[in-house]
Amino acid sequence: MNPLTAPVDEPAKANSVPRKPLTVAIIGFGTVGSSVARILTEHAPEGLRLSYVFNRNFERKRKAADWISPIVQWTDNIEDILSSDVDIVVELVGGLEPAGTWIRRAVGSGKSVVTGNKQVVARYGPELVVQAHARGGHVAFGASVAGGVPLISGLQEGLAGDELVELCGILNGTCNYILTRIETSGISFAEALAEAQKFGYAEANPAEDVDGHDALAKLTILCRVGLRCAVGHTEIPTRSISIIEPIDFEYAKLLDCTIRQISRAEKTSGRLLASVEPTLVRRSSPLASVEGPQNLVMSTGKFGGETIFAGHGAGGNATAVAVVSDLISIVRLRQIGGVAIHENGLRHLPVSSDFTTRHYLRFMVKDEPGIIATLATIFAKAGINIDSVFQKPGFSASRLPFVITLEPCSTSLVEESLKQINQLPFLVQPCVALPILD
Amino acid sequence: MNPLTAPVDEPAKANSVPRKPLTVAIIGFGTVGSSVARILTEHAPEGLRLSYVFNRNFERKRKAADWISPIVQWTDNIEDILSSDVDIVVELVGGLEPAGTWIRRAVGSGKSVVTGNKQVVARYGPELVVQAHARGGHVAFGASVAGGVPLISGLQEGLAGDELVELCGILNGTCNYILTRIETSGISFAEALAEAQKFGYAEANPAEDVDGHDALAKLTILCRVGLRCAVGHTEIPTRSISIIEPIDFEYAKLLDCTIRQISRAEKTSGRLLASVEPTLVRRSSPLASVEGPQNLVMSTGKFGGETIFAGHGAGGNATAVAVVSDLISIVRLRQIGGVAIHENGLRHLPVSSDFTTRHYLRFMVKDEPGIIATLATIFAKAGINIDSVFQKPGFSASRLPFVITLEPCSTSLVEESLKQINQLPFLVQPCVALPILD
Repeated sequence: MNPLTAPVDEPAKANSVPRKPLTVAIIGFGTVGSSVARILTEHAPEGLRLSYVFNRNFERKRKAADWISPIVQWTDNIEDILSSDVDIVVELVGGLEPAGTWIRRAVGSGKSVVTGNKQVVARYGPELVVQAHARGGHVAFGASVAGGVPLISGLQEGLAGDELVELCGILNGTCNYILTRIETSGISFAEALAEAQKFGYAEANPAEDVDGHDALAKLTILCRVGLRCAVGHTEIPTRSISIIEPIDFEYAKLLDCTIRQISRAEKTSGRLLASVEPTLVRRSSPLASVEGPQNLVMSTGKFGGETIFAGHGAGGNATAVAVVSDLISIVRLRQIGGVAIHENGLRHLPVSSDFTTRHYLRFMVKDEPGIIATLATIFAKAGINIDSVFQKPGFSASRLPFVITLEPCSTSLVEESLKQINQLPFLVQPCVALPILD
Repeated sequence: MNPLTAPVDEPAKANSVPRKPLTVAIIGFGTVGSSVARILTEHAPEGLRLSYVFNRNFERKRKAADWISPIVQWTDNIEDILSSDVDIVVELVGGLEPAGTWIRRAVGSGKSVVTGNKQVVARYGPELVVQAHARGGHVAFGASVAGGVPLISGLQEGLAGDELVELCGILNGTCNYILTRIETSGISFAEALAEAQKFGYAEANPAEDVDGHDALAKLTILCRVGLRCAVGHTEIPTRSISIIEPIDFEYAKLLDCTIRQISRAEKTSGRLLASVEPTLVRRSSPLASVEGPQNLVMSTGKFGGETIFAGHGAGGNATAVAVVSDLISIVRLRQIGGVAIHENGLRHLPVSSDFTTRHYLRFMVKDEPGIIATLATIFAKAGINIDSVFQKPGFSASRLPFVITLEPCSTSLVEESLKQINQLPFLVQPCVALPILD
C-alpha cells in the first residue's frame, strides 16, 4: 500500500484515538543493537518505546550509551524480558542457540519478534510465523537478508503482483572482499582471507562465509519469500570460494568476466534450481561492480522482468534500519487491529543445482602432448561442445594452468565427465569448474 | 512486515473464514490495462476478481482479448463503473481529465483506487488519500513512479526505519534514450528526438518528457513518500534536455562523465533542494549505465546510507506488476479489517534548486583574445573558483566551443555571473550550464 500521508490537522478516522506505544526489548547490544536503540531514540518513530536492553555484563555498555533514556531497563537476565509484558522482542545475538529458544519462548507468550537471525529464520522461519500468528503476534526478519537493502519487503509487497521465477545476487560481503582482493592484488585465497581476518571482515572461523553457509541461509529465506518455494535449510548445494586462484581472474578477464560468490535460484515447472558458488559474471553486469559489504540482488518476474535491489548488506546502521522498518510495520499492523498473513502456500519442489549453463573449466596439468585431445574426446563422448580454449604463456610445464569453456549444457553432465577427467595422470590437481552467468 | 507464509493446511486464525473477493474495474484497456487483466487472469492472485473493463469502442479490444473471462462486463459508459458496487477502480487512462474527476468520484463513493496517473497524484494525491481513508477506502499509486520498480513500497515500507535525506535518479526513459543517442551517434538533439518519435519512444508533443514535466511529477510524489515533504506540483524547477549538443558529451567524456536527465531532491534543515535537469554524472556511477526505458533511483538515509532500486520504468507488463501489487496490498489490508495510514505529517519546506555543486559551463564563442581572462575576472569577483578549462582543437573560430568547470559553489551564484556573461559580445549563444553530480 502506498497511501500518502494524511496531514496532521486532518487525521483519518482510524487514527483518531491515540494508542499506547508498543514496548520494545533489544536482546544483544552490539553494533546492530546499539544502532537500533539510537534510531529509536533519535528518529523516534511514533508508536514505539524502547523499554529493555539485554546484554551480558551490560554495565560498560550502559555507561557508554548515556544517550539512552534512563527509564530503559538494562538486564543480563533474559527472564526479565521473556517474562515481562513487553510487546516486541528484537533478537540480535545471532546463532542458533540460545537465540532460537528465546525467540520460540517470546513467540509462545504472544510477543512479536523482530530478528536478523538468518540461521534461525532459515531453519524455523515458517513454523515460527505460524505460531506467532496463532497468538496474534508477528515474526519479522527483514534484517536477516542483505542488511539494509529493503529486499524482503520489496519481494513481498512491491513485487507481489508478479510471479517471480528467478533470484540472483551477491549476499555475502566477506566473500566479495576476498575475491576482489585476489583479483586486484593477485594474492592467494589464503593471503586474502588472512587480510580480511586482520581487518575484521572475516571471522576467525571463516567457513560460514567462504564455504557459502551464510549465503545459503539467506538464499533459503529468499526462495520462500520471493519464489514461494518451501526449502529446507540444507537443501541448496554450496561450494567454497577457497578453490579460486589468482590465475582464474586472469582467465576470467580474457572472457570479459570476473568471479563472484553468486547465490541464485530459478523456479522451473518441476524443480527449484539453486546454488551458492563462485561464478563467472560478465564485467558489464551490475553484479561485477558490487564492492565490499554491498549486496545486490536481481529478481526476474514472469511479467515485470528484471528488478535490482542494492545497498549496504552489513553494518550496524544499515541492518538497524531493516530492524526498525520491521518494528514500524508491526506498529502499522497493530494500529489497524489485525495480523497480516500471506495466504498462498509455499510450494514444495525438489532442489537441484543442475543449471544448464556455460562452464569455465580451469585445469592445472603437468604438460605433455595430447592433453587437449584427451579432454576433447571425453567431452565429445558426453555430447558436450567445447566453446574455447585459453592457455596463457609463461608458466612452468610441470604446473601449467589452462582453461576450456563449454557451450551451455547441464552441470551434472559436466560433473560426470570431470569424475573421469580428474583421474587422468597429467592433472596436478582437480579441475576448477565454475558456471558462467549469462 | 515479512511474515513467512502459513502452510495451506494450517491457516492462521485471521484467515479461517474465506472472504468474498474484491471486485476490480479496469478503466483504460491499453498496454498497461490489458497486462493488468492478463496478470489477474493468468496469475490469479487470491481475493481479486476482474469484473469490469471500460474502454471507448471496446468491441475490437474485447474480441482480441478472448482470454478474459466472459463474466467480465465491458463498457464504454463510465457511469456503469462509477455507479456500480465494484470495490476497486484501476484508473489507467492517464492525463488530468477526465481521469481526475473519475478518481474523485470513485473515492467519493467509498471505492478504492489504484492508479498509475502521476499527474493526478502529483497534484491531488494527499487530498485523495485523506478522502479515501475517511470512507474506508485506499488510494494506491505504486505505478505512478518508475513503472515496475518497487520504489514507493520500498521507500514507504522497507526503508521506513530510516530517515531519508536524499533521492537521486533517472525517472524518464525518453530522455534517457535521446541523450544516449546523442552520445553514441553524435547526432543533434532534434535528430535524436525525431528518431525517438519514429520508434514510438517519444510523443508527437515531446515537451512533457524532454522539458522535464513527466519526471517532475514523479519527483514530486517521491519527495512526499520518501522525504516526507509536502511539495506542490509545480514547485520543483525543471530544465529541458534540448540544450544538450553532441559536443557536450565529448567534453563530459574528458571529465570521465556522461550526461543524463537527473531528478534529485535533498532535504536540508531549512529547505528542500530539488531539480529535474540535464546533469553530468560520473561514468562509474550506477546512473551512467542506465539504459533506455530503465529507471534507477538511489536513496540516501541518515542511518542506512545508500540504497539502489532499478528496473523497468515503463512498459505494459512492468507497470502492470506495480498495479497488481497495489491491488494485492488492498486485499491484505481488507483482510485484516482496517485502513493503513502513515501518521507522520508531511513537512512544508521552501523548495529551491540552489544546490552547492561543481558546475560544467560550455560556451560557444566567436574567438578573440582575452575571452578566458574576461570570464575568469567575472568569476573571481563573484568568489567562484575555476577548476579546469577544456578546449578541443579543430573548431571554427567563429563558433568555438570550450568548457570551464567550477569548484563547488551555489548554483544561484553561478546563475548570477552567467546573467552578466551571457551579455558579452563574443558569445554566439547563451552558456550551457550543468551541475556535476559527485
